[in-house]
Amino acid sequence: MQSAKSDRIITPYPGAGLPVQGGLVLGDYLSERCRLIEAALADALPEQPGTSAARLLEAMRYSLFAGGKRIRPVLALAACEAVGGRIESAIGLACALEMIHTYSMIHDDLPCMDDDDLRRGKPTNHKIYGEAMATLAGDALLTDAFKVLARSGDGGLPPALVLEVVAELAEAAGSGGMVAGQAIDILSEGVPTDPTKLEYLHSKKTGALFLAAVRGGARLGGANEPQLERLSAYGRALGLAFQVTDDILDVEASTEQLGKRTHKDEARGKATYPALLGLEQSREFARSLVVRAHEELTSFGERAEALRRIASFVVERNL
Amino acid sequence: MQSAKSDRIITPYPGAGLPVQGGLVLGDYLSERCRLIEAALADALPEQPGTSAARLLEAMRYSLFAGGKRIRPVLALAACEAVGGRIESAIGLACALEMIHTYSMIHDDLPCMDDDDLRRGKPTNHKIYGEAMATLAGDALLTDAFKVLARSGDGGLPPALVLEVVAELAEAAGSGGMVAGQAIDILSEGVPTDPTKLEYLHSKKTGALFLAAVRGGARLGGANEPQLERLSAYGRALGLAFQVTDDILDVEASTEQLGKRTHKDEARGKATYPALLGLEQSREFARSLVVRAHEELTSFGERAEALRRIASFVVERNL
Repeated sequence: MQSAKSDRIITPYPGAGLPVQGGLVLGDYLSERCRLIEAALADALPEQPGTSAARLLEAMRYSLFAGGKRIRPVLALAACEAVGGRIESAIGLACALEMIHTYSMIHDDLPCMDDDDLRRGKPTNHKIYGEAMATLAGDALLTDAFKVLARSGDGGLPPALVLEVVAELAEAAGSGGMVAGQAIDILSEGVPTDPTKLEYLHSKKTGALFLAAVRGGARLGGANEPQLERLSAYGRALGLAFQVTDDILDVEASTEQLGKRTHKDEARGKATYPALLGLEQSREFARSLVVRAHEELTSFGERAEALRRIASFVVERNL
Repeated sequence: MQSAKSDRIITPYPGAGLPVQGGLVLGDYLSERCRLIEAALADALPEQPGTSAARLLEAMRYSLFAGGKRIRPVLALAACEAVGGRIESAIGLACALEMIHTYSMIHDDLPCMDDDDLRRGKPTNHKIYGEAMATLAGDALLTDAFKVLARSGDGGLPPALVLEVVAELAEAAGSGGMVAGQAIDILSEGVPTDPTKLEYLHSKKTGALFLAAVRGGARLGGANEPQLERLSAYGRALGLAFQVTDDILDVEASTEQLGKRTHKDEARGKATYPALLGLEQSREFARSLVVRAHEELTSFGERAEALRRIASFVVERNL
């Protein structure tokens, strides 16, 4: 953890102003988990000043330490805990998830994709490093994610378990998951859709990685099959709730608030929940998904408290 | 293998015209191995007509089945055999290597990178599918590669072994290997260099994946440490020999012959071996690397015959 101290930890969760219930202060919890994850990420991807690869590493770290919400890695750790596991078991997966999420944002922002200039209140990666280096930084983050996850097996975890999590993560992120979602998204711009098709798109584009976070964390924490089933249902509901809320925020929030361009879905003719269902019904849908997510956690008792709070936070957030 | 039959197998190795020595006909050997690898690739990445991800799969398969030489996967299988392993053990790795190599070509050809219109005699991926889909096809090939490799553990291989190969492959392809090489390559355009720096660049850009092919294949075939050491030295020499020959071909061959734009290194001010050493000395260097590679194989006897022939082929090829 030597390099962690030198990294500026940016957390979007100040303790104040977030709900306090049942002894768990969500803002404090999320801030603490963010620090843990960012220290592990800083270890996994140290600066390499003076080397020939310095610029590549700089570009990777620029986006990786740009103040993300770290929801996917936090979920992985919380799912690990919910089945009685130690969070150390899932820290490699947590890093891999955030690296994959970050690569997908860098590539998504490229001129040939969404062509965005702003992300998390800062210029997008290619605005600083150029398109070629941004493409490579994304490629390297994606590749290194599998190294970090595979090497986390060195810490005494059963190799068969880690290997299964590698396979599930690759499945969730690749041509059957996240990338498929992005491809469908591009091809559907301006094409009329319906709620079923939209849910399918989001189950790939956003949902697959959320599900992999929850399932992977639970697996590494020692989940049995019935636990894995219930947490999968939780993860699916949560992933969709996150996306519905993202759609609502794109309509309602300002660029300053989100740190990225808003109102862009409509401008691009992208199908969204507010466009299909209206704002109020979209909010209702998101809330119903959180209720469903909470129901899946009943049998886990106190250990799933963090997962419960995260689900509520995901739809109540304004960033 | 059901989908294999429907795929047109394009092999660049007609049996005729290649050297016949000591009972092993290299052309036949390479053609047979190509067929095996392409059948496994077709299984790993079947067409999905009629689905929403059909176009993405089509773009991935367009470049994957464009008639590549399949040198990296052939090497993995040959290294597996050289230590007495069954090639089935390394077929997942072989597929992963070719998928990663293919993704790197797709991204390398993008307008923001080398901006190439022709690859293997066909229009490059983005010329057919557009930049956004080409970027995603590359991302998906890279991601799916790790799924295919990780799932090859389902065939009874020790999970710890497969996990180690996953980690080494990711290390070779990521920010410490191939992508670092590409980043250095971009940043060094027009910058004066020397043979030491050029060798370092190529050890990353081309060498790392060759080394991962040989080491991974050997590991999965059950190599012991001394065998792994010798085969690593073979892989390093071979990877460099391949790159020196690539540089020579870029100067000497025609676009028709290679199926890609030639003479582009000079046009871009890229450092090459012919530019640094002259053509004749570059050829001599490549031959000396093959001699070194052959020396490392002495103790493996007949089982390393394919590795020997591949090394000779790599510098004698004209495509």
